[in-house]
Amino acid sequence: MPQTSPAARVTHQDLANAIRALAIDGVEKAKSGHPGLPLGTADIATVLFTKFLKFDAADPKWFDRDRFILSAGHGSMLLYALLHLTGNKSVTVDELKNFRQLHSMTPGHPENFETPGVEMTTGPLGQGIATSVGFALAERVLNAEYGDDLVNHYTYVLASDGDLMEGISQEAIALAGHLKLNRLIVLFDDNGISIDGPLSLADSVDQVKRFESAGWRTIRVDGHDPKAISRAISRAKKSDKPTMIACKTVIGFGSPNRAGTSKAHGEPLGPEEAAATKKALGWNYGPFEVPEEIRDAWLKAGRRGRRYRRAWTRHFKEMPVNARAEFERRIKGNRPAALKKAIEELKNQLVAAPQNVATRKASEIALETITSVMPELIIGSADLTPSNNTRTKNAIDIAPGSYNGRYIHYGIREHGMAAAMNGIALHGGLVPAGATFMVFTDYARPSMRMAALSKLPAIYVMTHDSIGLGEDGPTHQPVEHLASLRAMPNMRVFRPADVVETAECWQLAIERRDGPTMLALTRQGLPQVRTTNEESNLCATGAYELSPAKSNKPQVSIFASGSEVEIALNAQKLLAEKQIDARVVSVPSLELFLQQSERTRKKVIGSAPIKVGIEAAVRFGWDAIIGNDGIFVGMKGFGASGPYKDLYNYFGITPEAVVEEVSKALAG
Amino acid sequence: MPQTSPAARVTHQDLANAIRALAIDGVEKAKSGHPGLPLGTADIATVLFTKFLKFDAADPKWFDRDRFILSAGHGSMLLYALLHLTGNKSVTVDELKNFRQLHSMTPGHPENFETPGVEMTTGPLGQGIATSVGFALAERVLNAEYGDDLVNHYTYVLASDGDLMEGISQEAIALAGHLKLNRLIVLFDDNGISIDGPLSLADSVDQVKRFESAGWRTIRVDGHDPKAISRAISRAKKSDKPTMIACKTVIGFGSPNRAGTSKAHGEPLGPEEAAATKKALGWNYGPFEVPEEIRDAWLKAGRRGRRYRRAWTRHFKEMPVNARAEFERRIKGNRPAALKKAIEELKNQLVAAPQNVATRKASEIALETITSVMPELIIGSADLTPSNNTRTKNAIDIAPGSYNGRYIHYGIREHGMAAAMNGIALHGGLVPAGATFMVFTDYARPSMRMAALSKLPAIYVMTHDSIGLGEDGPTHQPVEHLASLRAMPNMRVFRPADVVETAECWQLAIERRDGPTMLALTRQGLPQVRTTNEESNLCATGAYELSPAKSNKPQVSIFASGSEVEIALNAQKLLAEKQIDARVVSVPSLELFLQQSERTRKKVIGSAPIKVGIEAAVRFGWDAIIGNDGIFVGMKGFGASGPYKDLYNYFGITPEAVVEEVSKALAG
Repeated sequence: MPQTSPAARVTHQDLANAIRALAIDGVEKAKSGHPGLPLGTADIATVLFTKFLKFDAADPKWFDRDRFILSAGHGSMLLYALLHLTGNKSVTVDELKNFRQLHSMTPGHPENFETPGVEMTTGPLGQGIATSVGFALAERVLNAEYGDDLVNHYTYVLASDGDLMEGISQEAIALAGHLKLNRLIVLFDDNGISIDGPLSLADSVDQVKRFESAGWRTIRVDGHDPKAISRAISRAKKSDKPTMIACKTVIGFGSPNRAGTSKAHGEPLGPEEAAATKKALGWNYGPFEVPEEIRDAWLKAGRRGRRYRRAWTRHFKEMPVNARAEFERRIKGNRPAALKKAIEELKNQLVAAPQNVATRKASEIALETITSVMPELIIGSADLTPSNNTRTKNAIDIAPGSYNGRYIHYGIREHGMAAAMNGIALHGGLVPAGATFMVFTDYARPSMRMAALSKLPAIYVMTHDSIGLGEDGPTHQPVEHLASLRAMPNMRVFRPADVVETAECWQLAIERRDGPTMLALTRQGLPQVRTTNEESNLCATGAYELSPAKSNKPQVSIFASGSEVEIALNAQKLLAEKQIDARVVSVPSLELFLQQSERTRKKVIGSAPIKVGIEAAVRFGWDAIIGNDGIFVGMKGFGASGPYKDLYNYFGITPEAVVEEVSKALAG
Repeated sequence: MPQTSPAARVTHQDLANAIRALAIDGVEKAKSGHPGLPLGTADIATVLFTKFLKFDAADPKWFDRDRFILSAGHGSMLLYALLHLTGNKSVTVDELKNFRQLHSMTPGHPENFETPGVEMTTGPLGQGIATSVGFALAERVLNAEYGDDLVNHYTYVLASDGDLMEGISQEAIALAGHLKLNRLIVLFDDNGISIDGPLSLADSVDQVKRFESAGWRTIRVDGHDPKAISRAISRAKKSDKPTMIACKTVIGFGSPNRAGTSKAHGEPLGPEEAAATKKALGWNYGPFEVPEEIRDAWLKAGRRGRRYRRAWTRHFKEMPVNARAEFERRIKGNRPAALKKAIEELKNQLVAAPQNVATRKASEIALETITSVMPELIIGSADLTPSNNTRTKNAIDIAPGSYNGRYIHYGIREHGMAAAMNGIALHGGLVPAGATFMVFTDYARPSMRMAALSKLPAIYVMTHDSIGLGEDGPTHQPVEHLASLRAMPNMRVFRPADVVETAECWQLAIERRDGPTMLALTRQGLPQVRTTNEESNLCATGAYELSPAKSNKPQVSIFASGSEVEIALNAQKLLAEKQIDARVVSVPSLELFLQQSERTRKKVIGSAPIKVGIEAAVRFGWDAIIGNDGIFVGMKGFGASGPYKDLYNYFGITPEAVVEEVSKALAG
């Protein structure tokens, strides 16, 4: 049923087939890629982009645009074709021809940090739909503050069977349903095919019923019927719940021999089938060729948000000057000017009146200061609020239909939380922090990696960071997590030693804008080891000399992080009693330290012949500081259940053990 | 409504209150723990253990027992009280008094490797319910082979709100519903409370409807009505689907001031409230005291499976002698005698007719050999079967209601797959292997950690192990995963260099019985570098000299793993052209090598002054071999999308780069 489209004489089918043809050509040229999804969902995308999506291709970063998330990122040629056709300046026809080549704007999976107009990096399944919850929540939270004139948009997600099979999707749909995020609309590409074969090989879930059980509105449509799709989106936009539109589609639509089979999913059609597909679609043009009238119709769609953008700009300019400057600061992601001074004052107070507290409590102290100057910090916990100490005194909860708060009860959904945080960070205007026990970073790891890859300033508040949590035992005691997170590119891990270092690390976490930061915090109380006024942030280089040696030729350098800095200082004292001169270096961030200049590293590591590392975790990675002949006092395997002091003794992480190892080394 | 129980005059309430009282006492004595769940679910557990669970406390490892999984592991005192009351010899009253103390049988969360009678380690939420799918599947698969006389039991799970909020639960219920695992019965402790407060703070999911959407039967009951619970379990046992029984309960049942609040969840009641609770329950006995008639009634429940066990033993003894020996071998977890020789023959064939193939293909070759001698290997893929090369020629699929196969289409559920594999391993009688892309180990990590902690012989077939996967780009290219998995205690990572090493690593993976093994395998083709007959398994020490130096004083030692061994060998040749003598050490398992004796390590590392590590991954961890002054040729950050040869060149992982770095070092 041909539809009249924005440009006269051009039908819906023409528009959709332009996407299909470009997707076929891109994959054929690369001899690699996924044609199945673009062929199958071109109708859905055409309806969305030509009739609904509020965007202006001339300004893909305009703040109040609707967001479109391609959760099934393997179908990247769909997105590139859409960006190209609607007039995105970065995605030229040459870039389409460069699909999946090094340094192109068109990598195998969409990468927001490479390609303007790509809202988020997708590919690992489930991330898109889960991250979209953060986008949709950020929109509502900012709308509650700034009103419809400035923040008023939708988040659309195209999700596949695979996205919905991943567990993270359950966390996401439960959270979105609970919070009634009615600006979130998921278009489910219900094609019944997976890589192994028909979906029925592995799945029998009634997705519509499942979304309904999570508080969503649902609609079923024929994903190749543009009128039905259009009606469904119209209804979805008016819903008071998030909406899932199950679009029945044929994967590889149009391909005579592959449509409806798993063969269509992830490999080029090949020249013959590509030609046969184009013929079947009635597309009689050369590779990467789009007739002018179809191109014009698509370019018109690319301008359909322009009048909204102009109105928005008018409203923006009409704001009172201070409010506008603050709004602009926030949507640009600049940090509040008052932050630095506030942290300095906090440090001065702490030096004047030392506090021996767990670093999770120290984090709460820092947060009281930070939240008072930083309204864009939006924080939450995966149902461990009383343990993570993340809810400051004046915090207001975000609740279903009520978005004027800054505190999120994420539920027991670490993965969903981390993905939502990514969405909040990508949306802009807010800075996300989220908390759980550090051992449960494992649950959130795929989204944390996405934050690192996508250079997102998410902050993870990870308490209970070692065997120091005690009785809950080895299932809850991280031992390899510091190493495994330090190994992740662009992830920054801080493990502060006391209340002052915690304030410094929080400052660094917030000031960082090009990647995520994890704060590893203790359950157990710690003495304040930083007792003198330091204006500069000593944690900024990852390691620094906390307690110098007595002589200028110390025999021992002791390196420690977090709760083990106390042990290092006590070992230094015990060694002094034995006339062994030692210095102590605090290492709040091992990997940040390794990124410093050779000069800084050499200076901090020093030349003492014996090097000792202390950390209630595995040695893995520490050899970079202490050498593979260094002494390491830490964990060799999993922890155990018991009071934490018993555990430190049992596993031999004590000042006495350090003295013993050092004495052995000196004797040998 | 008092119920007549197995022992005369003892009521259901008496039995349930015995659990409650012991749980209160254990937590009070430890001054730490979670009383809320045992108080709330004692009625459910009492019905299950006294009327349904087929077990014999005298032999907690009897193979055909029903399994009971406490998915909400924080309620461990429930399980310890049950084990103690039913006569489990390991869980004495002294152990109850030692709750949460070092070296006790009663750690904070249940640990199957510590306490006989505990089926699996739980605590990290969602793991129990997801692992139970593996238990229930293993039961059906073995039943299909051995029949009802030998394998005929149920898997019961007690799961909490938190278990169901975790995304992994969706993967698990979808898989169980799809496969129609009707021997799986989940008792949902529907208490409406989480740590942050009422569940309504974070969740609104209709769990009953959600399970129904996944193909489960569901029943709602009052979780404090023993008759209703009993009727529900009876009906569940007859269902042709897995069943979820939503039991409405009151957390902290009986506690006058804490029942029904989050305060009841995770801290001791305190002496006053403990006394008040016991009074309210009508329990007038001292700490850890259980009156004799109640104790007798519980001991009787502990013997209720004895007659089934005796019948089973009779059937077992009646088996034909060879069949019995084979069955016994498998349920004991012994490996087939033919395995060693089969691998040796394969290696001989490969040396006679070398194969230059990707190691994922090499893995398929090894699997053809292994599956032919090892019927208990049950393998699957998370919807990447054609890419993972895991399905051998004669494989038979497991399908809904049809369990006589050995191949599982897990769907796009990496986490659910890893958990199910744990369940299969814990059940016994089968050895699980599962596959996906290596980058998606992140999705499965919590279950992989559980395998490592619980010492389970699970095998992960992780293909596409580096930038060598090419065009799919950085979202799909592992760079930190080798390091992050090597850092995990008791996880063994192998990265074989060719088809021969792959066979050796598969052998080691299968022979290993005290922990999981990961095989990191390439997408891209590799030359066969092992071309001489070696009877011994050279990979068994983690590293070995593959290509010796020309002299006995080489200047350079090059260490490499997997696909980079080819680069190392080519670098050795280029260096030889420059009169620089180098040797090449293949490092299929870095962490296994580090566990060897100092003598072995020194010998393999050698004394060449220049040490080079090559791996298409981050350096993190390699300093343990090459030293922190060693040369590392590898990745410094995330990968990129492009043909893989372009990527190796772009990231400088080439023989020429090695030569350049070595030349620099020799010059400097």
